[in-house]
Amino acid sequence: MTSLAPATADTALHPYDLASPVFKAHEGGKLRVTSTMDLHSRDALSLAYTPGVADVCLAIAADPTIADTHTWRSRVVAVISDGTAVLGLGDIGPAAALPVMEGKSALFQQFAGLSSVPIVLDTTDVEEIIATVVRIAPSFGGINLEDISAPRCFEIEDRLRDLLDIPVFHDDQHGTAVVVLAALRNAAKITGRTLGDLRVVVSGAGAAGVACTNILLTAGVGDICVADSRGIVHLGRGDLTNVKSILAKTTNKAAHSTTIEKALEGADVFLGLSAGAISEEAIASMAPNSIVFALANPVPEIHPDIASRHAAVVATGRSDFPNQINNVLAFPGIFAGAFDVGARSITENMKLAAAEAIAAIVADELSATNIVPSAFDPRVAPAVAAAVAAAAVADGVARASTLAR
Amino acid sequence: MTSLAPATADTALHPYDLASPVFKAHEGGKLRVTSTMDLHSRDALSLAYTPGVADVCLAIAADPTIADTHTWRSRVVAVISDGTAVLGLGDIGPAAALPVMEGKSALFQQFAGLSSVPIVLDTTDVEEIIATVVRIAPSFGGINLEDISAPRCFEIEDRLRDLLDIPVFHDDQHGTAVVVLAALRNAAKITGRTLGDLRVVVSGAGAAGVACTNILLTAGVGDICVADSRGIVHLGRGDLTNVKSILAKTTNKAAHSTTIEKALEGADVFLGLSAGAISEEAIASMAPNSIVFALANPVPEIHPDIASRHAAVVATGRSDFPNQINNVLAFPGIFAGAFDVGARSITENMKLAAAEAIAAIVADELSATNIVPSAFDPRVAPAVAAAVAAAAVADGVARASTLAR
Repeated sequence: MTSLAPATADTALHPYDLASPVFKAHEGGKLRVTSTMDLHSRDALSLAYTPGVADVCLAIAADPTIADTHTWRSRVVAVISDGTAVLGLGDIGPAAALPVMEGKSALFQQFAGLSSVPIVLDTTDVEEIIATVVRIAPSFGGINLEDISAPRCFEIEDRLRDLLDIPVFHDDQHGTAVVVLAALRNAAKITGRTLGDLRVVVSGAGAAGVACTNILLTAGVGDICVADSRGIVHLGRGDLTNVKSILAKTTNKAAHSTTIEKALEGADVFLGLSAGAISEEAIASMAPNSIVFALANPVPEIHPDIASRHAAVVATGRSDFPNQINNVLAFPGIFAGAFDVGARSITENMKLAAAEAIAAIVADELSATNIVPSAFDPRVAPAVAAAVAAAAVADGVARASTLAR
Repeated sequence: MTSLAPATADTALHPYDLASPVFKAHEGGKLRVTSTMDLHSRDALSLAYTPGVADVCLAIAADPTIADTHTWRSRVVAVISDGTAVLGLGDIGPAAALPVMEGKSALFQQFAGLSSVPIVLDTTDVEEIIATVVRIAPSFGGINLEDISAPRCFEIEDRLRDLLDIPVFHDDQHGTAVVVLAALRNAAKITGRTLGDLRVVVSGAGAAGVACTNILLTAGVGDICVADSRGIVHLGRGDLTNVKSILAKTTNKAAHSTTIEKALEGADVFLGLSAGAISEEAIASMAPNSIVFALANPVPEIHPDIASRHAAVVATGRSDFPNQINNVLAFPGIFAGAFDVGARSITENMKLAAAEAIAAIVADELSATNIVPSAFDPRVAPAVAAAVAAAAVADGVARASTLAR
């Protein structure tokens, strides 16, 4: 379910069958807006609409916090995309991205009971995207950015976090990072290591690669070496973006500068976040009891059955193998927890708390093939929400005026 | 329910009681987004979300019309406001406008079964509003502009109609105009006149005044004299906006240039669309069997009991008197009909057809106190939708690819 390296598909040649189960499932769309009140009487209408509604409008004009309790907005997530990095399909545009955003909104509702509205944008300009989101923000309680290509996604998220006082969360970065950290905590425990013991090689320096690297460093992972399509990200390269230049400074204590295969020799963890395949030989060269997360979808960087010949723990992004790294474990509970306490932002501690909560769910059932809960485990979203809410309060970003669910 | 002349309220001093029925009714908001599918199984998730959804994305990239049938967008109305002319409250800003927009979205759902999302904007700049709506438009099937102050609303609607190929409709203008025309058709019939016989005086040259004047002229009303807060709109005035200059050319055959009281002498119809009161003497000076629509809310330009001493037919915007001119008679059915045939715009003929459909509902029950159906008459929205859809097809603005409801 993680969106990884974009690759522009030859869409004009892709065949499709409108009678197939997939198309039948999407017919008419996957969302509905309903009213929580019956408005078919004069009394109901005069309370919910004119003239009664004027009292609520005036109260909000006098005290804006009343909008948090007396409109729907404080529990609505906008799922926003420009369609530039959709699933593994690449830049397919806003209309073609809408089915994914609708699905994401449906997941917010089904897994956390939150309302969510998909908004696809007819622009790919960074400044226009930022301006548009700022202008529609008073309608929503939180902004979930989705499937926006790197490196644009970094600037868009950073600027929006500065400009808005509601949670802004780029799920392709931080949702993935939270679930990867949760899984890595449990994989380390099973193989008798601490996070500080781990030497990690990350394949991919897009949205997910950068965010995973950052959260793993924050969580105390010993050393990380990052590779992109041109090789190891290191200070000697002249072709680095801003974000990769920062990565080059914070990573690669071992000063690798050649190939990902070289970096993998003796490494504890392979974290695949790109479509680039990795050879069995490279996996075999890792440290004993290695950990392999091959998260490219639908084709992992190495087949999990092959990786299992050498690694002690193997995870993928696929639902048909053990240890599925699935963002749905994170984003519904993270927004629900943030909304429960009216958090003004999603802090690092809130993300770390979410990862710990996910890891803790399977603490008593931990095994090499059960390092993360199932996507459908009903304990996950409430546990994540509670941990995130507590971290928001501890970080001082909670508001008092929001109603409990 | 019509939004009329804005007057900025002293919001800071307005008292409110969170324990009152109005605030209880609005607690937590009035809308929810739900999913039409149960996603709590791997099979469902793999159809509605990854990997299945990729097939739908690619199909839309190859054939954009598939977005009309296989996402929710072609039956979703965005209700968009900048909060500058909310009800009679004036410029109260986006957050304070949200309860009204939520209510409007709830009415779309309850009266026409359409999904609708309220979007309030953190800008009042005309160019920024237009750019923002264009950029979010791929997410929606239609745009209902709401409570945007005149004359800005005219340019915003005109430009968006040019820029977008989905229905754009400023309800404060055209919803009001459609229901006024419906009511006036029946009032004329009851008093033994044709539309061409009527000499109408319109009080108010804001959004509703301009749109009502235009639709009445298109429908064949004999002559119309429009007054704003500075008196009669006529060619000799040096202070006219673009829109009012055009009105001055298309109206006022009798060449009035003094006061509204003078214009009302011998007139057939008074159409009040402002908060400015009108005297009993002025109403008494009208032609025999006069028609008085005093639509200011909550305080009509003249009390209907007083108007009834002199007029044959009296209508107001209030639900506690006969003949309520209520936009909810128009907008749900207009969008439903447009969506039913995938209309690319709302044409003049579609609005005229809506007015005729509303008027026809009460044809067999017509009386001086029953010139329009009740807001809750279940026949209205389906009849309006059918008439509007037929007019869209006749005007050649219908698309073929939209699914029926």
